[in-house]
Amino acid sequence: MTIEAEGTAPPAGSDRAAIEGVAPARPAAAGRTPGFGFRVTATDGAARTGVLTTPHGDVPTPTFMPVGTQGSVKTLTPGEVAATGARIVLGNTYHLWLRPGPDLVAKLGGLHRFTKWPHAMLTDSGGFQAFSLAERRTVSEDGFVFRSHLDGAKCSLSPEVAMQVQGALGADIAMQLDICPPGGAPRAEVEQAVLRTTRWARRCLAAKAPEQAVFGIVQGGSHVDLRRAHADELGAMPFDGLALGGFSVGEPIEDMHRALLEVAPHLDPGRPRYLMGVGTPSDLVRAIGAGVDMFDCVLPTRNARNGQALLRGGRIVIKQARYREDPRPLDEDCPCPACAGGYSRAYLRHLFIAGEILVLRLFSAHNLTLYGALVREAREAIARGDYASFARRWLEPRPDDAP
Amino acid sequence: MTIEAEGTAPPAGSDRAAIEGVAPARPAAAGRTPGFGFRVTATDGAARTGVLTTPHGDVPTPTFMPVGTQGSVKTLTPGEVAATGARIVLGNTYHLWLRPGPDLVAKLGGLHRFTKWPHAMLTDSGGFQAFSLAERRTVSEDGFVFRSHLDGAKCSLSPEVAMQVQGALGADIAMQLDICPPGGAPRAEVEQAVLRTTRWARRCLAAKAPEQAVFGIVQGGSHVDLRRAHADELGAMPFDGLALGGFSVGEPIEDMHRALLEVAPHLDPGRPRYLMGVGTPSDLVRAIGAGVDMFDCVLPTRNARNGQALLRGGRIVIKQARYREDPRPLDEDCPCPACAGGYSRAYLRHLFIAGEILVLRLFSAHNLTLYGALVREAREAIARGDYASFARRWLEPRPDDAP
Repeated sequence: MTIEAEGTAPPAGSDRAAIEGVAPARPAAAGRTPGFGFRVTATDGAARTGVLTTPHGDVPTPTFMPVGTQGSVKTLTPGEVAATGARIVLGNTYHLWLRPGPDLVAKLGGLHRFTKWPHAMLTDSGGFQAFSLAERRTVSEDGFVFRSHLDGAKCSLSPEVAMQVQGALGADIAMQLDICPPGGAPRAEVEQAVLRTTRWARRCLAAKAPEQAVFGIVQGGSHVDLRRAHADELGAMPFDGLALGGFSVGEPIEDMHRALLEVAPHLDPGRPRYLMGVGTPSDLVRAIGAGVDMFDCVLPTRNARNGQALLRGGRIVIKQARYREDPRPLDEDCPCPACAGGYSRAYLRHLFIAGEILVLRLFSAHNLTLYGALVREAREAIARGDYASFARRWLEPRPDDAP
Repeated sequence: MTIEAEGTAPPAGSDRAAIEGVAPARPAAAGRTPGFGFRVTATDGAARTGVLTTPHGDVPTPTFMPVGTQGSVKTLTPGEVAATGARIVLGNTYHLWLRPGPDLVAKLGGLHRFTKWPHAMLTDSGGFQAFSLAERRTVSEDGFVFRSHLDGAKCSLSPEVAMQVQGALGADIAMQLDICPPGGAPRAEVEQAVLRTTRWARRCLAAKAPEQAVFGIVQGGSHVDLRRAHADELGAMPFDGLALGGFSVGEPIEDMHRALLEVAPHLDPGRPRYLMGVGTPSDLVRAIGAGVDMFDCVLPTRNARNGQALLRGGRIVIKQARYREDPRPLDEDCPCPACAGGYSRAYLRHLFIAGEILVLRLFSAHNLTLYGALVREAREAIARGDYASFARRWLEPRPDDAP
């Protein structure tokens, strides 16, 4: 089943939309930024595969964005990141704003030239970290006021500043500033967050750099009615894509997946759908099944630095004594530098216990390669109409990988 | 001027030896280990270039051995190390003995297979670190007794154990256990160290693995007479190479270079001469001029991790504010991943200040590439009889590399 849509959706009320349970399309609202577009090339149930067009190349979707918090996907070169299959990475505006600062990045030619990443790039708004990392933070209608976690300097992050900073950083895609309530927040608080996020959405669109795409962020917690209403509201605005924020923020993960099944297909199908900050391989498999196109998460790189190598259906915690004399690579079928390089688990364990940086690199490349394989195989499965069996295969728990 | 010698020296008393001030040759004593040899292919004054043959390939000399203390040249893959021009690396027996242990390394196929380094490898004896790193250490005629710096376990390192552990690690070249007095030691202490080192030399040769080459270690501090006498004594033994230990251990560096000029040419010219633990680029240039063939030092990789990029005639301390907006690479003519990768000094500075591992990798590769270029250019200069002008060029101090 294949449809084509260059930044637009099928005609409102068409049979397709009715059959697939998607929201009515708003062709006038989507894909406003020059050089930017989105095209769905195949669907299988709610899952879809497509192509996100950016000034720095096409990104096949579903896609996973490795996180380059401070202008570097930790431990790896841009070439190594691209070798995992990634064609878009995420930078954290909060960190880059505080250090080295948007003016310096702009002076050096923008984040692409500064970091030597040649493919597409997205920055978050900085709001999430301003609230979670910074000190003495307060929030008002105007934005966040906080103290830098680096030097205590007082900073103000309004919707306008968020767009200005992201404009200077110069990623292909910026994110609107939003309010992200914690997982257990009362419904009234979530409702207020939705309302303020909508007001900030308008201010962000008004303040955005003309050449930079911007995504809106749908809030609403695990409340499907709030989520759908917010998706409609933001969908009516000329955002280039729509994100789901406020998931995986402390709520039971089953609540997220239950809500995703009802919310993701409701987001305008003509625009890319981005589930922020998620997640494990099985989270990705399930969310792609619900119709999500884009993901980011620190899990593969952070777990790598904690000595965890992810496998299909399992993981290796390399410090465990069971790997002490294990001559096998992490995964015999994996093309990553760790596995194709022929390093034994015994050697990798030694490096980790000895505190050698090499193993952090190898595990980071390995884990991102697994994520790259997951989204590539998902795209292929959707294209051949076989997503259900792909998902079954990936979600199947496997016995621990013992020597 | 070209001579050929496959693990042997010119006939004793020949004009060449007399003219160049080299010691009388002892052909019967050299190159006893199968698969191992040394051939001088050209000389220029005391400097020489040649080929060290090992079971893991030929090593052109002069050569610099990057240090892989714990089975990894810190931050780099074997392929990246080889790309700097290195064809031999050094492993630290003390560290590998304590962790992961020689039995494990042997079980996994030896240090080459364990670490995936395909070229030649040398291990030190462990004595230097047993004395400098370990706790509650004592030394007697039988060897060192100490407590592991990792877990306090009591360990005994005799000449026989040093050879047994190095045999199990399985590098191409092992080093004898020696006594290395500190830089300011009184002459009487240095004389005792020489005597015990000679007795240990015999015990090491008796205990060595048949397939592993072993180098003797000449001691004697900055006392040229002691050094020469010791060089003759060890030169009469069937070592595959002769090292100069006990230099760069706290004495004024000019004392070392003065002694080297008189001692290095005195070492049997038919065997490789290895100056242990040295040094800066200018130390290498001067020592090669004195007739040294092999070097190891942690300086290029350790300084890299401290944020220092070495240049010809200078260095960049990347945290300095002067590099904050500097768009240039470290060195426009350098082929290393940092320079050829096009990373600006401004970006490298940001990475270093932000604590990103990527910059440690890039600086390590850069600094080792400089050392690789130094020894390669030294070999070429010797072969064309132009070492003096090469040395002048490298030793010339340059103005600080300001933006």
